[in-house]
Amino acid sequence: MAIVVVGSVALDSITTSRGTYPRRLGGSATYFSLAARRSTTVRIVAAVGGDFPPSLRRALRHPRVDLAGLAVLPGKTFRWAGRYSEDFASRDTTGLRLGVFETFRPHLPPQARSSSSVFLANIDPRLQGLVLSQVERPRLIAVDTIDHWIRHEREALLTLLRRVDMIFLNEEEARLLTQARSHRAMGAWLRRAGPSVIIIKQGWYGAVGWCGRSMVWVPAYPVDETVDPTGAGDSFAGGVLGVLDRAKRIDVDVLRHAMLYGSVIGSFCVEAVGVAGLQRLTAARFERRLANLKRLSGLC
Amino acid sequence: MAIVVVGSVALDSITTSRGTYPRRLGGSATYFSLAARRSTTVRIVAAVGGDFPPSLRRALRHPRVDLAGLAVLPGKTFRWAGRYSEDFASRDTTGLRLGVFETFRPHLPPQARSSSSVFLANIDPRLQGLVLSQVERPRLIAVDTIDHWIRHEREALLTLLRRVDMIFLNEEEARLLTQARSHRAMGAWLRRAGPSVIIIKQGWYGAVGWCGRSMVWVPAYPVDETVDPTGAGDSFAGGVLGVLDRAKRIDVDVLRHAMLYGSVIGSFCVEAVGVAGLQRLTAARFERRLANLKRLSGLC
Repeated sequence: MAIVVVGSVALDSITTSRGTYPRRLGGSATYFSLAARRSTTVRIVAAVGGDFPPSLRRALRHPRVDLAGLAVLPGKTFRWAGRYSEDFASRDTTGLRLGVFETFRPHLPPQARSSSSVFLANIDPRLQGLVLSQVERPRLIAVDTIDHWIRHEREALLTLLRRVDMIFLNEEEARLLTQARSHRAMGAWLRRAGPSVIIIKQGWYGAVGWCGRSMVWVPAYPVDETVDPTGAGDSFAGGVLGVLDRAKRIDVDVLRHAMLYGSVIGSFCVEAVGVAGLQRLTAARFERRLANLKRLSGLC
Repeated sequence: MAIVVVGSVALDSITTSRGTYPRRLGGSATYFSLAARRSTTVRIVAAVGGDFPPSLRRALRHPRVDLAGLAVLPGKTFRWAGRYSEDFASRDTTGLRLGVFETFRPHLPPQARSSSSVFLANIDPRLQGLVLSQVERPRLIAVDTIDHWIRHEREALLTLLRRVDMIFLNEEEARLLTQARSHRAMGAWLRRAGPSVIIIKQGWYGAVGWCGRSMVWVPAYPVDETVDPTGAGDSFAGGVLGVLDRAKRIDVDVLRHAMLYGSVIGSFCVEAVGVAGLQRLTAARFERRLANLKRLSGLC
């Protein structure tokens, strides 16, 4: 079992009310792999430039992470800079240099093509489609996207959705895509568009999901303090898909368990700047929070 | 067992993107009693003016609702007019005439003084305190408030909190009162301020609560469409307190059950204009939703 993730490996500069943290390891594929590798093998397909620091490449290394698809291309690594409002309710992108991502065309190494699961992190939906043409009958294809593609590549996105099993969206994206005004209506719209497994993320409230027509609701793990929410969505997705990739079959109870797992991983992500919270996460701390989250949900 | 509720009985004029609905039965004590009467006896302490329509007084009547404390005073009934944004994310108060509420001093009839529970709906915290001096050892004293009192009567509110067992706040109010930036920190602050049972309402996401240090999280019942959210918070509180008033003892499992109950009652409230959704609610429809909500929470 393995998940191939196609997304970004980036250098982030993060500004919060506490300070600015430049040149941090970031990118959707990075956060996703740090979360999913707890459960399953992850194959990263992404590109960095010649300037990508060896120390950060080492930070991605792990017995269950395959970096064969992480191309080093002539040019600069993708850079993102963002500034969060004091309460983290909003963020502005203050800098964006695509670098090697400007011309990135995902190419899957042979062993990645037969992965059991695929996670198409947020990139151009046409490139996401290009990935699907390279994989051999995965059991689960999941996609993430953002408002930019919903606004500017809606048709390409809708075409893609007919080919995927699962979608991750945050609530604003779901509202924008579906134009629906209730969670139930959003879920129904998305199910008609293609995916049968749907997750709408709600930040610090939690997430609502569907497996077919069965609805699941899972709270966010309540942290004492959010320090940096960057990567929380990709960490959540990595936690969820790590569990789903290892599951014998996907039903509503498995989805609930996967979402609880993702919620806990996301909580470790937001408690520290960048990937630090995920890097120092121990199995004991993880299990303690998972038990806490189940308890406050009334599940044990 | 009975709950005495001190709050408003009002005439509301509600404007949504669908239209304007004038002179509807409203007020915190109204919504609360319509919800709580499903489980226990409710004693309303409020005042209306001579203009209060007999048809609306009849709408409040019920075998488990005691109207002895609903005074008819010289003057006009409290009127509130509000306009919701299209997505119900915000509302403006477009008209407010206090009428008889301007000089209202709550006076509890003899049988109300020995109620087992007290709900102090949103009024001036000094008046809420005045009510407490009239009750005889209730088992549970719960209070609701709004941003206005938090901003302008903070000291009176803090004095009151030391005398109550339970508080209901929405998330913005909790943030304003506690200045905390996480649910956990909000809960800890509120517990130190007095109440040991705490509920922070989160609109269509649900509600988080504490019984002592034990945290509970319950989703909102997912409705197909919100038509009018007026009274949802008071209906939720009525549903919760109706269950708590009847419970042998209050622990975290009882609180969870009460919050699920309140969540379902709130869903019926928001699906119709004014009190219509609560009025036409049947036991069969209620039980179906409660089972659905438990299922999507993983509780059955």
